[in-house]
Amino acid sequence: MKLLEEKIRRDGKVFEGNILKVDSFVNHQIDVKFMNEIGKEFKRLFADKEITKILTIEASGIGIACIVAQYFDVPVVFAKKTKSVNIAGDVYTSKVESFTHKRVYDIIVSKEFLHKDDKVLIIDDFLAKGSALCGLIKLITDAQAEVVGAGIVIEKAYQEGGALVRNMGVRVESLAQIKSMSKDGSIEFVD
Amino acid sequence: MKLLEEKIRRDGKVFEGNILKVDSFVNHQIDVKFMNEIGKEFKRLFADKEITKILTIEASGIGIACIVAQYFDVPVVFAKKTKSVNIAGDVYTSKVESFTHKRVYDIIVSKEFLHKDDKVLIIDDFLAKGSALCGLIKLITDAQAEVVGAGIVIEKAYQEGGALVRNMGVRVESLAQIKSMSKDGSIEFVD
Repeated sequence: MKLLEEKIRRDGKVFEGNILKVDSFVNHQIDVKFMNEIGKEFKRLFADKEITKILTIEASGIGIACIVAQYFDVPVVFAKKTKSVNIAGDVYTSKVESFTHKRVYDIIVSKEFLHKDDKVLIIDDFLAKGSALCGLIKLITDAQAEVVGAGIVIEKAYQEGGALVRNMGVRVESLAQIKSMSKDGSIEFVD
Repeated sequence: MKLLEEKIRRDGKVFEGNILKVDSFVNHQIDVKFMNEIGKEFKRLFADKEITKILTIEASGIGIACIVAQYFDVPVVFAKKTKSVNIAGDVYTSKVESFTHKRVYDIIVSKEFLHKDDKVLIIDDFLAKGSALCGLIKLITDAQAEVVGAGIVIEKAYQEGGALVRNMGVRVESLAQIKSMSKDGSIEFVD
């Protein structure tokens, strides 16, 4: 998605330690108008698929998922990162490693909100090592629901997550695939 | 908002300890189509106001805020609950007490995303004791920006938060105001 690549080049910031900050439009401030363009693009890519639910993970996936969901006319379910006292009853769980926050946490989805007849599209902001995406896929398969695919805004294509998940047979559509980036701020995308 | 009151009565669940669970359409699964009705209502209520930004707090505020923001054509900024290694530079901070999670945490907003010429509408799912809302108001006033008001989906009107914030001179619009609720599941709204 050319528009996204241009926006990442213009507004993204590359930091030491393989960090790409897109806080000005994705992760802290959300450019809602731009997210609608992203929603249209995911709809175009998955137009041939029946989808009953969008699954994402808190926190930064939620805003994107809600805007995208409007184009599929389905509800969003977001996996929660810790067991809240507000969640009673049975949940599906898996473990996710955060390289940004340098820790492993549990994610949960209430069994009420994932059923075996659901056809689920996963939406998330980043794909790097694939830990969050694998965790979300496990929640869906534990519910015996169908993983229709994953729509990712930015994939760090030089990391292993994309290949890992595609090799599991899951369709992954990333709107921008970063081939390399360097501290001087230059970002190269996969053609 | 009658539609919301009906939905809370139908889909909300009252639990021991003053807990109202609206996980099926607000806090875990998000009914995006319904959130659009909420967006229209906030736009109607704040139609006379100039707004440049919507501020909310992660995680459950984000989805609502993004849908609402479409009616105001402004970006969303969400306050983060812990200092992430992804956030460099200066931030505004305040403290928020969570009664659900029984702890106090710091919330932050990068100074990049709140400026003194901003006119900010706060959007959040719940107002009870007012701790999150006061924390968000502090972030805005620390930035010398203007607090236009707060749009709350559900206010527990029998708790002190609403009066506390309105007494500060902040306009608070709550779409459903709960007068009382009891363990048998009955919910009474303020007229």
